[in-house]
Amino acid sequence: MKSPDYGDKDPIAALATSLGESALALVRTSGASGGGHSSIDILAGVFSRPQALLAAPGNTTVHGWIIEPASEEVLSSSVTSKDVRKKLDEVVVSVYRAPHSYTGEDSADICCHGGIAVVKAVMAALKKAGFREALEGEFTFRAFMNGKLDLTQAESVMELVAAKTGRGREQAVRRLSGVLEKDISAIKAMLVDVLAATEIYLDYSEDEFLSPDEESEGALPNKALAEKAAKRLRLLSELWSRERIYAEGALAVLAGMPNAGKSSLFNYLIREDRSIVTDVPGTTRDWIEAVISLDDIPLRLADTAGLRKMDRNTPGLKEIDEAERIGVERSMELLEKADLVLYVVDGVKGFTEEDREFFVKYSETQKEKPLVALWNKADIANPSGFPDEKIKEKTKAQFIPVSAKTGEGIPELLHLMAGLLEKAPQPSLPSSVSDDQLLQAAGPGSLRQKELIDSALSEIEEALSMAGRGESLDLIAPLIRSAVNDLGEITGEVSNADILKVMFSRFCVGK
Amino acid sequence: MKSPDYGDKDPIAALATSLGESALALVRTSGASGGGHSSIDILAGVFSRPQALLAAPGNTTVHGWIIEPASEEVLSSSVTSKDVRKKLDEVVVSVYRAPHSYTGEDSADICCHGGIAVVKAVMAALKKAGFREALEGEFTFRAFMNGKLDLTQAESVMELVAAKTGRGREQAVRRLSGVLEKDISAIKAMLVDVLAATEIYLDYSEDEFLSPDEESEGALPNKALAEKAAKRLRLLSELWSRERIYAEGALAVLAGMPNAGKSSLFNYLIREDRSIVTDVPGTTRDWIEAVISLDDIPLRLADTAGLRKMDRNTPGLKEIDEAERIGVERSMELLEKADLVLYVVDGVKGFTEEDREFFVKYSETQKEKPLVALWNKADIANPSGFPDEKIKEKTKAQFIPVSAKTGEGIPELLHLMAGLLEKAPQPSLPSSVSDDQLLQAAGPGSLRQKELIDSALSEIEEALSMAGRGESLDLIAPLIRSAVNDLGEITGEVSNADILKVMFSRFCVGK
Repeated sequence: MKSPDYGDKDPIAALATSLGESALALVRTSGASGGGHSSIDILAGVFSRPQALLAAPGNTTVHGWIIEPASEEVLSSSVTSKDVRKKLDEVVVSVYRAPHSYTGEDSADICCHGGIAVVKAVMAALKKAGFREALEGEFTFRAFMNGKLDLTQAESVMELVAAKTGRGREQAVRRLSGVLEKDISAIKAMLVDVLAATEIYLDYSEDEFLSPDEESEGALPNKALAEKAAKRLRLLSELWSRERIYAEGALAVLAGMPNAGKSSLFNYLIREDRSIVTDVPGTTRDWIEAVISLDDIPLRLADTAGLRKMDRNTPGLKEIDEAERIGVERSMELLEKADLVLYVVDGVKGFTEEDREFFVKYSETQKEKPLVALWNKADIANPSGFPDEKIKEKTKAQFIPVSAKTGEGIPELLHLMAGLLEKAPQPSLPSSVSDDQLLQAAGPGSLRQKELIDSALSEIEEALSMAGRGESLDLIAPLIRSAVNDLGEITGEVSNADILKVMFSRFCVGK
Repeated sequence: MKSPDYGDKDPIAALATSLGESALALVRTSGASGGGHSSIDILAGVFSRPQALLAAPGNTTVHGWIIEPASEEVLSSSVTSKDVRKKLDEVVVSVYRAPHSYTGEDSADICCHGGIAVVKAVMAALKKAGFREALEGEFTFRAFMNGKLDLTQAESVMELVAAKTGRGREQAVRRLSGVLEKDISAIKAMLVDVLAATEIYLDYSEDEFLSPDEESEGALPNKALAEKAAKRLRLLSELWSRERIYAEGALAVLAGMPNAGKSSLFNYLIREDRSIVTDVPGTTRDWIEAVISLDDIPLRLADTAGLRKMDRNTPGLKEIDEAERIGVERSMELLEKADLVLYVVDGVKGFTEEDREFFVKYSETQKEKPLVALWNKADIANPSGFPDEKIKEKTKAQFIPVSAKTGEGIPELLHLMAGLLEKAPQPSLPSSVSDDQLLQAAGPGSLRQKELIDSALSEIEEALSMAGRGESLDLIAPLIRSAVNDLGEITGEVSNADILKVMFSRFCVGK
């Protein structure tokens, strides 16, 4: 991934809310105070009440207008001609003084009207006044650099924004409030103790400091503490697989022959949970997609119109144009990416030769992925004898009759889907973990965190196993040191500039 | 239109920014202070620092967390168990105290994270705390009722949000800053003077108060003032037709046979102005649409995939399914609605029989609408002899060679389109109006305003004409009174509850 080139102190500005026709929009600015970088000072140049803004204490709001930037002539003339500068939009500015702001710098959040033209005009004025458009994650990057957040909290901000269901949001909020950071710090403190004891042992092992008791504990001093740390790391690692699907969601793809009723079924399913239907941005796409909440799993549901041409040889379809060919290809890619396929059979027509072909082909190529076959139009077509035994033998598919018209079978379908999707990421948890603990715990929030936890865990396990075999502490100590280092990287105590840039660049602009 | 039932004092809340994955979102609340309605007091029930919020003066911000509402048990118990209530999101609340807020009531704007799940959780907590979801335009309705805005300003808020180009925004901002209101009030004051003079004349016409001079002015006293008022109303009315296209925009539809290159051309055109491309919300649509700015005219450009099936009889296409049939129908509707049709001809294939059929049919049915025929792929296909004379005779279409690959002909096409769309709404303005005046003026911002201006204008014109014919002032005075009333309705001085509700219900939620 290309990493952005974050300027150190540049005054930056970005639209922090979604662009669209809405009542309001929020443009966020930040710039280190002093040296002409303060975002409040710069904003005053395009604000109708500059003195009020400059005098505003932190954590107050100032009402006024964003006005067009002064032209060169106006700036060089001695006449005050502020009155003739055009008003761009009426706004309320929230003023934050360093260090009491999100970034830790002087900041001003501009609450303007939500029109597209308004946001463009305000951003254009800010750029002329001296702001640069902020890069992805640049506000949060500054917050981290200024010690306002650790890395687990910074990453949780991105998670929170992406959360589509309550459970995903809850996990992110726990990390944002520092639950994971405290956990990691506590584990790290244990390992630092183990490391210190080991190093004392190495330095003074022949001294009288060490009692025979400690020697009898095995080769690793403070072994019990290392085991406790390993146990806690193992829990965090397991929470990842358990919680991941709630954060990242799953993709279910609707496939089937024409007229089977894919679109009706799609519409029925999304109508059930209209409130969080989202349109995926992009102007050229060949499928329709919406996100629904399935038992708190954010489920991307895709209706692939293009699929219908797969394996068909109708004469008229030889004439399909380029766009359609691409559509079919994209639909095939989508099928490959799916976590779950819903294959819709037209109950009135019955199970056709084409349906059979799909099933055989799918069973051969996509063995691991759950397939659900839906006998649609069950309100008017009896599903008895569906599917025939020959098909049932060849595939692991689940079969269920539904009706997109009456809603028959839909609750069963939703239940079945949730079960299929949750099955994989439900490892048995250590019995020592209480339900209360689970409700308070927060696993890792990103693959980066998970990998560092796993790395630390395997190092400690290796250290314990070496100690068990009586190997030299000289060889064991570096493993523990490396684990401590891994945990420091999770919170950002130990950090690498390039990794940071890549991490923050996955944020959206305005964060 | 169904008018909403605005509650008088209910505490209300609504998401004021667009819903989507974004850094931040803004949830606005308002409620009359006193009587348990204050939005600040109610918000404190789901805020992590209730005392800080309750003590906050107006125009300040308070940092904290939205927490889940207290359960019944917690509320009835004497133990403070705030600590166990779950945190929902970290927020900054901007506090506004009545009457210094947008609505004139106690208000609190909650700046939370922009995730869909976050917004849902925050709104759910607010509802449990005692807020009702605000109806469309309810915040602005309250602002109007509390005397914070007149109706021309209130309507300009909606315009501003919908503005897609700079010129549309400029007009709305002028009205928001009260330019139209002042203009209308000034004209109204003139007419009130005329009316007063007329009534004095009616009451005392046989007294010695009136000099012979005034009698010689014709039947209408203060006639010159009435003429001046009529002239200013005429200018406002003309500004409407002039500015309307910049606010409302136009619809251009791309049509043509398969493979002609409609989609490539669509993509080329929107790529030129990527920044304001918007996806129209909705999950089932059969065409792709984007808004571009064409010389500041917001142009909705639609690519109708479905159109290609029009009038075709390919064997395979008999099998087109229901969804496709609906798609073709929608495309035809779109063509009817279009302000401009761009018909794409595949230059390599040349002008086919199908193309010819479209042109003939179009010329017969859509006489008034401009049609532009594009000879596409002009980079590899010579457009000489396009179109043949027979076609040119039968249609008023403009013909232009373009290439979606090299961009050849695109600047000419954009220029031609802007000309065709601007032609209609460019009435000659009264020569007495200077350019400077035009730059400062603001015409009506809604059809409602325009109709009231026209109504007042025709009443004054009728009054002047009756006066010219020497008709009785008894008959003329009511016309002037009615005009004064019309102007009062524009600003909302005179108002009708039902009309208000319908007007504000066209706003978006959160305004």
